[in-house]
Amino acid sequence: MREPDPNLLSINTATVRAQWQLPEIIAGCARRGIRMISPWRDQVAATGLKESVQRIKDAGLALSGYCRGGMFPAIDGKTRRAALDDNKRTVDEALALGAPCLVLVVGGLPKDERGRVASKDLIGARAMVRDGIGELLEYARPSGMPLAIEPLHPMYAADRACVNTMSHANDLCDELGGGLGIAVDVYHVWWDPQLEREIERAGGHSGRLMAYHLCDWLVPTKDLLLDRGMMGDGVVDLPRIRGWMEAAGYRGPHEVEIFSANDWWKRDPDEVLATCVERHRSVC
Amino acid sequence: MREPDPNLLSINTATVRAQWQLPEIIAGCARRGIRMISPWRDQVAATGLKESVQRIKDAGLALSGYCRGGMFPAIDGKTRRAALDDNKRTVDEALALGAPCLVLVVGGLPKDERGRVASKDLIGARAMVRDGIGELLEYARPSGMPLAIEPLHPMYAADRACVNTMSHANDLCDELGGGLGIAVDVYHVWWDPQLEREIERAGGHSGRLMAYHLCDWLVPTKDLLLDRGMMGDGVVDLPRIRGWMEAAGYRGPHEVEIFSANDWWKRDPDEVLATCVERHRSVC
Repeated sequence: MREPDPNLLSINTATVRAQWQLPEIIAGCARRGIRMISPWRDQVAATGLKESVQRIKDAGLALSGYCRGGMFPAIDGKTRRAALDDNKRTVDEALALGAPCLVLVVGGLPKDERGRVASKDLIGARAMVRDGIGELLEYARPSGMPLAIEPLHPMYAADRACVNTMSHANDLCDELGGGLGIAVDVYHVWWDPQLEREIERAGGHSGRLMAYHLCDWLVPTKDLLLDRGMMGDGVVDLPRIRGWMEAAGYRGPHEVEIFSANDWWKRDPDEVLATCVERHRSVC
Repeated sequence: MREPDPNLLSINTATVRAQWQLPEIIAGCARRGIRMISPWRDQVAATGLKESVQRIKDAGLALSGYCRGGMFPAIDGKTRRAALDDNKRTVDEALALGAPCLVLVVGGLPKDERGRVASKDLIGARAMVRDGIGELLEYARPSGMPLAIEPLHPMYAADRACVNTMSHANDLCDELGGGLGIAVDVYHVWWDPQLEREIERAGGHSGRLMAYHLCDWLVPTKDLLLDRGMMGDGVVDLPRIRGWMEAAGYRGPHEVEIFSANDWWKRDPDEVLATCVERHRSVC
């Protein structure tokens, strides 16, 4: 299999978030010849939207996505409407930043005001997700901002996202129509026996493959949230999944997103970026 | 919804394994009026098979299953054949104990002799699982010991079991035929949007619903392996899933299986059993 095009490498800013603010990440990526980033909303807010836009432009970087909207399920109508309003602002930010898509982490079971899960109705939460995406699409579609559902690993079904498979995300795209697609993150979907088939379903003229995220699954995984691996350090057959993406027509960015509290977040961020560049070439 | 029949409660012996050996578990369950257990193989070995059989009989207990066979993928033919031989011995033990089924945890990616994952070929591992179950069925079917595939949560795909959905388990049953069924553990499958449909597919005249395991999914979950919750302490809608099982014709045991290194394994085991009895009645 061909090596991946190094120009397709993008760095999700979470990968070095513990060490650097957004301006340093932008400068660090530019220094290393990395041409794309995918920033997180809190990092943009800390720097300021206008300054973030300017710095990204000045550095000659493009975006591979914007993280993130979503979190639709809520315990009452007021909270649900507040989440929708906030999601609309996120669409505006994504537009200002020139992002090709807004990534949606759709939310899990509804939580109370203290952030504790307040319902066991998973089917109801999934209906709220469908309705919430539908409402946000009414705003995002005329704005020209595509929404990319990111199916999260089933271990996050309760607290982060109750869309946990490509199949479910494809079903939502079938139901809700244009302007909606999928962000495929290998960490979340690598285990799925239906993965090849569902990537194929999302590809081609469906045009749903909006993002491709890379990291690796470590054995053992010591923390459910913050123990993702650098590509090549885990068990995911990354070239095989890239092959499925390419066979389905995907030619977009390869975005590295690593949450790693006890390893990569403790290293020199320049070393982290250098490793991303090297591993992208050698093992992805 | 009706309360569950207390006579259906079974205790998987892992639930109090840190505190008690098998003879104490048998005696403790009998004292409390619990009529079924599902023992683990290492606990039976520690007590001795013959003595285990006798003590279970003397206490008037029945089995809801035997844990466990499986672990089919291997790096070479010699290791694979050794695993098959060991699985055949496990079938013999299950027969001696009078278990209604042998639960299979099918194994993940092949490991080397030091127990480290030695392959990224998940599709190949799944083929080894299919072949391994097929070979074991040739031994188990004439012996009259049903094999129950337990789909494990996708977070165990690499290191414990690469059958991670009811759909995959049903496909294997379709392919491999009689004498093979499914152990439905809510911890592993509660998140699956296809769960109701796949339970229905396994039920009725398919006759594949061989076991039903209970615990709960905690938020947050602090450890991938040993942080399962007592029923009612987590987010799983247990009555809803029981309703699906019953609608599919399941009338068998409700087996409580809790791995909980920092909570239930540190409590008085009599209190643990009392809590299982109470929660089975009140929240399952």
